[in-house]
Amino acid sequence: MKAPDIEAFFADRRALDAAAYLELDYVFECGGDPRVAAAHLCSEQSTAQWQRVGVDEDYRPRHAAKIIAFRSEPISALSLPVPGAPAGPLHRVQVTIAHPHGNFGPRIPNLLSAVMGEGVYHVPGVPVIRLEDLRFPEAYLAAFPGPQFGVEGLRELLGAYDRPIFLGVVKPNIGLAPAPFAAIAEEAWLGGLDIAKDDEMLADIDWSPLDERARLMGEARARAAAATGERKLYMANVTDEVSQLCALHDVAVARGAGALLVNSLPVGLSGLRMLREHARVPLFAHFPMLAALTRVPGYGVHSRVLTKLQRLCGADAVIMPGFGERMMVPEAEVMANVRACLEPMGTLKPALPVPGGSDSADTLPRVYATIGTRDFGFVCGRGIFGHAEGPRGGAASVRAAWTRLATQDAARDMERPVKD
Amino acid sequence: MKAPDIEAFFADRRALDAAAYLELDYVFECGGDPRVAAAHLCSEQSTAQWQRVGVDEDYRPRHAAKIIAFRSEPISALSLPVPGAPAGPLHRVQVTIAHPHGNFGPRIPNLLSAVMGEGVYHVPGVPVIRLEDLRFPEAYLAAFPGPQFGVEGLRELLGAYDRPIFLGVVKPNIGLAPAPFAAIAEEAWLGGLDIAKDDEMLADIDWSPLDERARLMGEARARAAAATGERKLYMANVTDEVSQLCALHDVAVARGAGALLVNSLPVGLSGLRMLREHARVPLFAHFPMLAALTRVPGYGVHSRVLTKLQRLCGADAVIMPGFGERMMVPEAEVMANVRACLEPMGTLKPALPVPGGSDSADTLPRVYATIGTRDFGFVCGRGIFGHAEGPRGGAASVRAAWTRLATQDAARDMERPVKD
Repeated sequence: MKAPDIEAFFADRRALDAAAYLELDYVFECGGDPRVAAAHLCSEQSTAQWQRVGVDEDYRPRHAAKIIAFRSEPISALSLPVPGAPAGPLHRVQVTIAHPHGNFGPRIPNLLSAVMGEGVYHVPGVPVIRLEDLRFPEAYLAAFPGPQFGVEGLRELLGAYDRPIFLGVVKPNIGLAPAPFAAIAEEAWLGGLDIAKDDEMLADIDWSPLDERARLMGEARARAAAATGERKLYMANVTDEVSQLCALHDVAVARGAGALLVNSLPVGLSGLRMLREHARVPLFAHFPMLAALTRVPGYGVHSRVLTKLQRLCGADAVIMPGFGERMMVPEAEVMANVRACLEPMGTLKPALPVPGGSDSADTLPRVYATIGTRDFGFVCGRGIFGHAEGPRGGAASVRAAWTRLATQDAARDMERPVKD
Repeated sequence: MKAPDIEAFFADRRALDAAAYLELDYVFECGGDPRVAAAHLCSEQSTAQWQRVGVDEDYRPRHAAKIIAFRSEPISALSLPVPGAPAGPLHRVQVTIAHPHGNFGPRIPNLLSAVMGEGVYHVPGVPVIRLEDLRFPEAYLAAFPGPQFGVEGLRELLGAYDRPIFLGVVKPNIGLAPAPFAAIAEEAWLGGLDIAKDDEMLADIDWSPLDERARLMGEARARAAAATGERKLYMANVTDEVSQLCALHDVAVARGAGALLVNSLPVGLSGLRMLREHARVPLFAHFPMLAALTRVPGYGVHSRVLTKLQRLCGADAVIMPGFGERMMVPEAEVMANVRACLEPMGTLKPALPVPGGSDSADTLPRVYATIGTRDFGFVCGRGIFGHAEGPRGGAASVRAAWTRLATQDAARDMERPVKD
């Protein structure tokens, strides 16, 4: 590109109609002039060729993505051993791009193709790039459903207020037939669990057909609710081909599921959105494939982007890789995802953040202290279903751990001098 | 895990029923005992907890993923700056895992959740891991449709045999109204293009509704076919919410599209499979998001896995990042993807490989020499629609470049001594 062409991809944010643009934050490493690289990033993700040969026209004013914030610093080497090491001096660059959503409209696959597509990862001289965040104008958000129930709706379904929601993944997750599966789930419900859920790997499969599993789980749930006087939910995993999602919703809900689990990246975020339009119960999104896109620093996409998109598509709760060494996610990143669930986002309801991974009664204090709010889901697998005292003892241990924390909170509130 | 538990995740391939297992090749970097890490990788992606507390049972013989090939070597440091640097001595490990597909069945989202899910990227002590390849038994492949047309079907539709298929991405890709869009496509068809295609970013949008675009493109296609005596195709991009895919297929095909483009990762591979079951025309899969999963060596997934899955789901052609510095993909990786399209895969038809990226008449000789077969698609964007002589001249330049190559081939064949 020549100098005037490069400048055509830079704009003053104040000169743009904010309602017409998404804001995208990228960090990238490039060779050569970093402003040229930034202009190419805009060009490739929008008007790659902005005029016909021999025609005096220019599609950039209306359709080009435009740099509205730019900062670069020299670096001595790329941070990753990627192919395509570029020529020229190296820079690390932070940009914010205003991308006109009128190029593609409020469609998830087309949004993904624009902000995470060929025009992002195949920009000349830019082998290392990460989409760090994206922000939507209200006009764009308004086209999406967002959560149907959200945090408050989930609390009402469970009658569980002012505390975390306690979930358990029934284990053994693979191979266990519906009858013993429901039997141990019932034990966990009796011990204090709110929601017994299918593992994200558990499908509608011959050794555990969803129809039978949901029926037995529904019956067990009803018994446990009657015995404890607490409302309970069974969350059925309907992850399957997108052509089957709505039918599986109908089967699972008719038989006894009060919530559904869907692996949103394997199914596709658009499949989640489709299910949301059909669903009569809360949807919990689970995170397979997420780490493949998000773990390597400086590359791919920050997980908060995917959290926002799941909320946009209608996830009432977002199960995400949580705290602790095991999940290999920095605490700040988990917290960014928690905030992406709860922070204001147009008129979309908040989604319940459910950071998970090898949790148990032992980890609850740290998780609660870190999150700093009671609006979260706490999910255990082996922490309940592998507990030495069995699932009932496991679930009771988690509830007891919460009671201790709530008591400490209350004591602290009592000691605090009253201010007016 | 204790020693006998670890050994339960290792097996002799000859002792397994090959028809019941997928074979997965992973390379990973780990801390601690590499055999323990490999056992955890198997456990986490299958029977994470293989028995109920206090019950004498074991779901591993039938349901566990099992290591059937293992090789490790010490390394001094992880190859990537990922979080979760593990304790203990570091190793780089290559394993082949036999994963029982009866755990989830022939469902793409559940397959992805197993082989690229939490049980792969969140294995204790394994922060760096890549799914290098996967192989399916014929019993599993038989449940999938694969390409409806494949290479031979595409050739028959076009009447184009014994040469590459020539495609052009109509540009300007964003902003151009349907009438001028069709006018320049017609020029390119007249110049020798086989297939004029929508850009992967072009949607069904107010400034270019698919209905009108497909109608005008269909008319232009018919005129160009009559004028040249060659069959021509318009490939319409139907990338949109999965709930709209089949309806957009119907509109596009009814108006004049003879092939469809779908961004398979943004839509979801399962959406591609759904469209395949509905489609009456060839489907071309495009690659947005692919590099986010595949570029970093040693991490994520090798692109050939995604090529195989696109073929499995029914892509008649796989547009992939191609040759040359621009696309930042090593030549060996492009070739692995070309082979994944064309090599035997049960009874599935071959898919046409379409390696693309900044190609033009100038790059055709190198691409053809590298691929070494005429079974490929050659796609130009600015190489045709930004050509100094306009789209007709651009398309003609590509066909002329092919004529030169074919003439050279023929001359070489003439010079070669006849063997019998």
